[in-house]
Amino acid sequence: MHSSDLLKDIVIGMSDGLTVPFALAAGLSGAVANSSIIIIAGIAEIAAGSIAMGLGGYLAGMTERDHYQSELKREYEEVDRVPEIEKQEVKDFFKQIGLSEEVQEKASNEIARDKKQWVDFMMKYELGLEAPDPTRATKSALNIGFSYIAGGIIPLCPYFFISNSTQALKISILATLICLFVFGYFKSKLTGVAPLFGALKVALIGAAAAGAAFGVAKLIS
Amino acid sequence: MHSSDLLKDIVIGMSDGLTVPFALAAGLSGAVANSSIIIIAGIAEIAAGSIAMGLGGYLAGMTERDHYQSELKREYEEVDRVPEIEKQEVKDFFKQIGLSEEVQEKASNEIARDKKQWVDFMMKYELGLEAPDPTRATKSALNIGFSYIAGGIIPLCPYFFISNSTQALKISILATLICLFVFGYFKSKLTGVAPLFGALKVALIGAAAAGAAFGVAKLIS
Repeated sequence: MHSSDLLKDIVIGMSDGLTVPFALAAGLSGAVANSSIIIIAGIAEIAAGSIAMGLGGYLAGMTERDHYQSELKREYEEVDRVPEIEKQEVKDFFKQIGLSEEVQEKASNEIARDKKQWVDFMMKYELGLEAPDPTRATKSALNIGFSYIAGGIIPLCPYFFISNSTQALKISILATLICLFVFGYFKSKLTGVAPLFGALKVALIGAAAAGAAFGVAKLIS
Repeated sequence: MHSSDLLKDIVIGMSDGLTVPFALAAGLSGAVANSSIIIIAGIAEIAAGSIAMGLGGYLAGMTERDHYQSELKREYEEVDRVPEIEKQEVKDFFKQIGLSEEVQEKASNEIARDKKQWVDFMMKYELGLEAPDPTRATKSALNIGFSYIAGGIIPLCPYFFISNSTQALKISILATLICLFVFGYFKSKLTGVAPLFGALKVALIGAAAAGAAFGVAKLIS
């Protein structure tokens, strides 16, 4: 497993974990005066969200693996059954990137000399599929799920200690926006975006979600 | 925009939209007897979740576009500044897929004859980057956001009509599991997974998330 995969999982889990429970708690603070119901809703949301995202990540990983295996099998069969068509597909690849007829011919003959090499080439450049890491699905599920929980606990903390939900909301907004900003800063650094700009964007999403949740909850209550 | 992109957005939005508000409502039904608080929490969650996912999708699309543009600029500069190194990278690509020294040399010379073709090749096969659709980010945000709302309304509907939350929960479980099953069936057909197996998996995620949310909410209330 690449460290970039781990970071990607953490980013996926934590950005939603910080945002959605935060916004839900903010929304309920607009409708309910007592913190206890907000804590129950927040924890129920964290349980639901972490399982949905974690299990979702696990099953997506499994599907990717199954899909790769079935395509691999199909390519091996086709290379045996219709070698001329498959060779033409290799030639078409070389044509499409701009090589001359002569080099297309030579290159596709060389690729087709070795069956494994031929199939690997087709998988990667015709179908655009990379061989998935077999243990990735399980790890990914755990990483995303726990990152969601870690992110979701932060905005709820103030409600544990302050029974007046409006007061707790103020601390929650402050703490969560700081965390979103810091998280957005490091996330942007990793993905090569200007860090301060990226940090502002991430904090903005959280604020917009919380504002909308607060607004609709206030409206209907 | 490819139709597969639209379907991907709908799948992303709707699978979370059906699952998380469903599980939250189920969780609160374990702790609160009256449906009205569940409706408020559910709608706040849908507002928060759709904005977090929609805006998240939008900003991810923007980041992808910016990243592509900055890499494209860098490749053009490198092709001008260090053409020999860049040509060697093209040659290395042909070596790595299994071509002979002679064909590597010919193919990389042919690629490097045209600057645009050369850079396009490097972007796609060295960096693995596809040119993103410029309007994709906005469309993606709207697709994901509205799919989340459409999915999230379904599990909440029974609570609008039945004031006893335990009674409403029973209808909600039935309606949502049927929707998750149908949704999972079509999702699997699109992604090439065995449809019935895929449908069961999607329904299972929803049931697990709802069960966990119900369990923790009951425990702490």
